[in-house]
Amino acid sequence: MIPFKIHILGCGSALPTLRHNATCQIVEIRGKYFMIDCGEGTQIQVRRTKVHFTKIQAVFISHLHGDHCFGLFGMISTFGMTGRTAPLHIYAPKEFEEYFNLSMELFCKKLEFAVMFHPIETTETKVIYEDKSLTIESIPLEHRIPCCGFLFREKPTTPHIRRDMIDFYNIPISQINNIKAGANWTTADGDIIMNSKLTIPADKPRSYAYCSDTRYMEQLYKKVANVDVLYHESTYTNEYKDRAKSYYHSTAEEAATVAKKANVGKLLLGHYSARYLNEDIILNEAKAIFPNSFLTNEGMVFDV
Amino acid sequence: MIPFKIHILGCGSALPTLRHNATCQIVEIRGKYFMIDCGEGTQIQVRRTKVHFTKIQAVFISHLHGDHCFGLFGMISTFGMTGRTAPLHIYAPKEFEEYFNLSMELFCKKLEFAVMFHPIETTETKVIYEDKSLTIESIPLEHRIPCCGFLFREKPTTPHIRRDMIDFYNIPISQINNIKAGANWTTADGDIIMNSKLTIPADKPRSYAYCSDTRYMEQLYKKVANVDVLYHESTYTNEYKDRAKSYYHSTAEEAATVAKKANVGKLLLGHYSARYLNEDIILNEAKAIFPNSFLTNEGMVFDV
Repeated sequence: MIPFKIHILGCGSALPTLRHNATCQIVEIRGKYFMIDCGEGTQIQVRRTKVHFTKIQAVFISHLHGDHCFGLFGMISTFGMTGRTAPLHIYAPKEFEEYFNLSMELFCKKLEFAVMFHPIETTETKVIYEDKSLTIESIPLEHRIPCCGFLFREKPTTPHIRRDMIDFYNIPISQINNIKAGANWTTADGDIIMNSKLTIPADKPRSYAYCSDTRYMEQLYKKVANVDVLYHESTYTNEYKDRAKSYYHSTAEEAATVAKKANVGKLLLGHYSARYLNEDIILNEAKAIFPNSFLTNEGMVFDV
Repeated sequence: MIPFKIHILGCGSALPTLRHNATCQIVEIRGKYFMIDCGEGTQIQVRRTKVHFTKIQAVFISHLHGDHCFGLFGMISTFGMTGRTAPLHIYAPKEFEEYFNLSMELFCKKLEFAVMFHPIETTETKVIYEDKSLTIESIPLEHRIPCCGFLFREKPTTPHIRRDMIDFYNIPISQINNIKAGANWTTADGDIIMNSKLTIPADKPRSYAYCSDTRYMEQLYKKVANVDVLYHESTYTNEYKDRAKSYYHSTAEEAATVAKKANVGKLLLGHYSARYLNEDIILNEAKAIFPNSFLTNEGMVFDV
């Protein structure tokens, strides 16, 4: 299976603790590495993973709270000092642009690589990145300031060719693309070999949705319907439901409700309030609604 | 002895490593806490010390390189979330002001405490802070961008009263201030008791000079002459003397030369290049010139 993994670099919330780092994840997909959020200390967390600095091709910032972006310019400076030459793309709410420009001007001049800023309109559901195997869409979220999530979707691929059958029927290489595209094969004797005998169905395209920070959104499940893995912030337990609402955060129960209604494969929890010294209470609350829930933790890697 | 201590929170240089944090120190003097520089991750380092967030009354930023200031706004945000009400003073090169204002506007709005910015002219030697027991002066340094060090000096204090002699001669409380100021005492019998019999000389005012980042400055020793403790950056060993010069940094030998010429009490070394996996080579080079040299390390506390 071609790798599609989520590396957890930080899963704490606004108040940093000795237990959790500020928010950061790296999505590894088909040999490409996309960072989501970049809280203070992220570059040190990257050093603790097996992900090489140079492989990170883009950073997606969900919103302009420090625990989601204060690590960005330190990391870009370090990229500059460690010989990076590949361009780096920054996708962030358009409100970030002035600060981005000033920070680059003050702290990251004369880099040997280009840093390209791509403003996001956080109120739109829109494909903001696309390559031949992947799209990334913005997901509007409801937080105290403009904020969006990100939905990574593999594009459908062609079926796998059954090499044994190709050899058996002596089918020439030139026909492979037609067969991948669905064609049957007619033998010299005029027998028609059905395509389904020559191929194994394509892998189901996989998908990962990242939703942080947001308060509970009644309709969010439609945007993330049937994704394989959903990360949904779960800052609080139900006990602090009112607090969650007023600070535009979610409870574990609310995160699990989105997961259940969206019929996702797996729910990842994170962005824990510093008040929890043990997050099992968050996990248990989520599992009661959606059993296939998991706590994220620094250093963990989840398969999509 | 009234405490005058240097807490080392970070002593690495621009490239962060798993061994050293970016630059930060806290100067504790007579119950007051002054932070010098505030590299990325500083707030987590503060949590590891015994210094309470609320006690830090001012932050002094030497220059606008990320490893000396990227932790500032995360720390200010955290102060806001942890109930601080006392004002916080930021002293930084005047070039920092636009970035300071924009960062405060974007990330630190609606705080319950005031954050006051005090621009520093880094080319001047000038008292930038003063209270009844202390002055802090800027020390112009030579780095790639405007940069200054900081010189903490206790003000002279009055002599200590010898309680035993005061009791012996039955001297009334109303006379204590006169005696502290140097007056003799005449007994009822007309005997003159010399002031030196009634007092113990005042403690010698102590001083601490912080010099990072800078290339070797021929005349710097005059500015830091006779300080009790000098911190002078020592990014490299002599092997990289040319590199030090072209990047406007110093070698351990150069740091020790300043210490020797300035006749300081103790030299603290730091801002180590990431290339050194063991800094003993830096220490040995400094000690060959100035024996009373010490390596700083995260978590260490030095008495002035």
